[in-house]
Amino acid sequence: MTRAFLDDGAIATLETPVVVVDLDAVEARIDGMASSMLERGVALRPHAKTHKSIEVARRQLAAGAVGLTVATLGEAEVFAAAGIDDLFVAYPVIAAGAKGARLRDLSERCRLAVGADSVTGLEHIAAAVRGSAPPPEIVIEVDVGGHRTGVLPDAVGRLAERAGDLGLTVRGVFTHGGHSYAGRSQRVAAAQDEIQGLGAAAESLRSVGIEPAVISAGSTPTAELSAGGAVNEERPGTYVFDDRQQTFLSERPLDDVALLVASTVVSHGAANGFVVDAGAKVLAKDVAPYLAGHGSVVGCPEAVIERVNDHHGVVSLPDGVARPAIGDVVWIAPNHVCPVVNLVDELVVARAGRIVDRWPVDARGRNT
Amino acid sequence: MTRAFLDDGAIATLETPVVVVDLDAVEARIDGMASSMLERGVALRPHAKTHKSIEVARRQLAAGAVGLTVATLGEAEVFAAAGIDDLFVAYPVIAAGAKGARLRDLSERCRLAVGADSVTGLEHIAAAVRGSAPPPEIVIEVDVGGHRTGVLPDAVGRLAERAGDLGLTVRGVFTHGGHSYAGRSQRVAAAQDEIQGLGAAAESLRSVGIEPAVISAGSTPTAELSAGGAVNEERPGTYVFDDRQQTFLSERPLDDVALLVASTVVSHGAANGFVVDAGAKVLAKDVAPYLAGHGSVVGCPEAVIERVNDHHGVVSLPDGVARPAIGDVVWIAPNHVCPVVNLVDELVVARAGRIVDRWPVDARGRNT
Repeated sequence: MTRAFLDDGAIATLETPVVVVDLDAVEARIDGMASSMLERGVALRPHAKTHKSIEVARRQLAAGAVGLTVATLGEAEVFAAAGIDDLFVAYPVIAAGAKGARLRDLSERCRLAVGADSVTGLEHIAAAVRGSAPPPEIVIEVDVGGHRTGVLPDAVGRLAERAGDLGLTVRGVFTHGGHSYAGRSQRVAAAQDEIQGLGAAAESLRSVGIEPAVISAGSTPTAELSAGGAVNEERPGTYVFDDRQQTFLSERPLDDVALLVASTVVSHGAANGFVVDAGAKVLAKDVAPYLAGHGSVVGCPEAVIERVNDHHGVVSLPDGVARPAIGDVVWIAPNHVCPVVNLVDELVVARAGRIVDRWPVDARGRNT
Repeated sequence: MTRAFLDDGAIATLETPVVVVDLDAVEARIDGMASSMLERGVALRPHAKTHKSIEVARRQLAAGAVGLTVATLGEAEVFAAAGIDDLFVAYPVIAAGAKGARLRDLSERCRLAVGADSVTGLEHIAAAVRGSAPPPEIVIEVDVGGHRTGVLPDAVGRLAERAGDLGLTVRGVFTHGGHSYAGRSQRVAAAQDEIQGLGAAAESLRSVGIEPAVISAGSTPTAELSAGGAVNEERPGTYVFDDRQQTFLSERPLDDVALLVASTVVSHGAANGFVVDAGAKVLAKDVAPYLAGHGSVVGCPEAVIERVNDHHGVVSLPDGVARPAIGDVVWIAPNHVCPVVNLVDELVVARAGRIVDRWPVDARGRNT
């Protein structure tokens, strides 16, 4: 990867570390996924936890997304307040106490669905929204191999019956093939798990007399592999900006990424290499077993970001590779983009080398 | 560790995940470090990047701190605006472009010192503050073994001469014995490195006719080990709240920590164990080679937080250990507290089991 997102004049105006998105690339990514899902006849409901941005959400909807996926009630509140009226909280929400009141309020303001994987979860939801019109629909979470949240496929029918007893409507089933992140080969296997697990979960629903309206898979690595057939909705999030681990998993060039962190070389330190002002407070600390270091330095594939502290990225170089000068701006593709966006208040928007906009990260920190 | 910070009635009002500090514990920690440094005749200049809170800073100053340490101009601006008038940016600031103007503005509003470890850094500072009265003082960063930023001790005099040529005043030298975090034995060795390296750096300064006013070490693990003798200032940050890795390194009980993350059990998943709503977006992803998992579950030392995704903490339990019920609130001591505080907008303040205050994280995200 060789390109920076800004020309030298614009770079000189940056206060680093700063997160920059390339608008042409973002638009291409939004349109590309929308077209891909349209071709497959599958609904696209992008996960907004990646961008947390009203502006980006509107662009996704304009490109054909049926609604948004969010992780928390707080994110849902931000998007609902912006007039986005079809939201799915893809999380086993425990709507106790104040969260119960917030759930009820949300369900009166938009078309809402929420995840559940336990009787306790269903009971809290039912208690929270009793008497509200209309209540949120329930989407039951299925564990297809990620072993995080969700019930096993054949337990879905039983849980759906319980939802019905509590006066709730079940929209369908969802899963997240998160084990797709383990490596390239696991990506294909995880997509197969999504197809098979969701298929079995849908059968379990039918066995208790419920025809699922939505059979939903989610994860950027699997989205285009599991879409179609029984799976009629996909919820990728990371695709909108892309990141280093996504490009690795899907064997694409790093040039695909639409978001980079611009950072300044602040020191040559006492060791070989150099130190940048992008540390864990902007790059986060996500590492993948198949990638060296804490991000990729654009134009310098030999560089390894060996460690990040709060405000320091310590970069090593092989002998013979010239290090950038102190004061130079270097561009870094983060390993995992979601936590990066959650660390900043705004995204600088570039197009053709110039700064054309700044987008607030509207739902930053809305993690409850 | 067995205690939660709140009684059941107060817990029921929380919206998790949420960061809670125990006021008695925070006060004890602030007073303890202040007393310890007073006994040693060493100035305490706490690093505010841990708490980013005006309220906490005021308490540290009231207990005897001589001023604050910060990592960024953005943090300095927040505290200067609150009337805290003695600030040290312990970082090799590159004051180019807009940062130059901000540095100049800051230097006119408070007694300011900034770090430098390169001629380029000094040149930017000199250019930025030329003609301002008074300009910031320079503290030269020394690498005593952490191999991050800083020059070697015997190079300090030469750099100080260059500062003088540029019209800047050198206050002294500073280091961060960050290699103290590598393990218990390294902690003592790192403190020795601080003492020896700073001593040599001070000699290097004297060799060019500069008597250092400040010889400053920083890191919570080493603060009480390197203070005294040549070292006349300490800049610990994490001590104010403490965390899991600090208690391990200094062989203290986890009960010492003054900050916990309250989180809700949201799922029993399909695997053994349970899942909480505290994921990487509140616990961050700091791991230490000497600690299992992403934090410690209070009252359940057998539990291991095996992995954290953005909004999920996946906890394993050994056979025979009962898991908490879905909906239960569990308390987690984070591995590293600094990134945790930077992820939230406020800290809930507890005393004797009740919520007594909420402190804004005033400088959250002020990382440029």
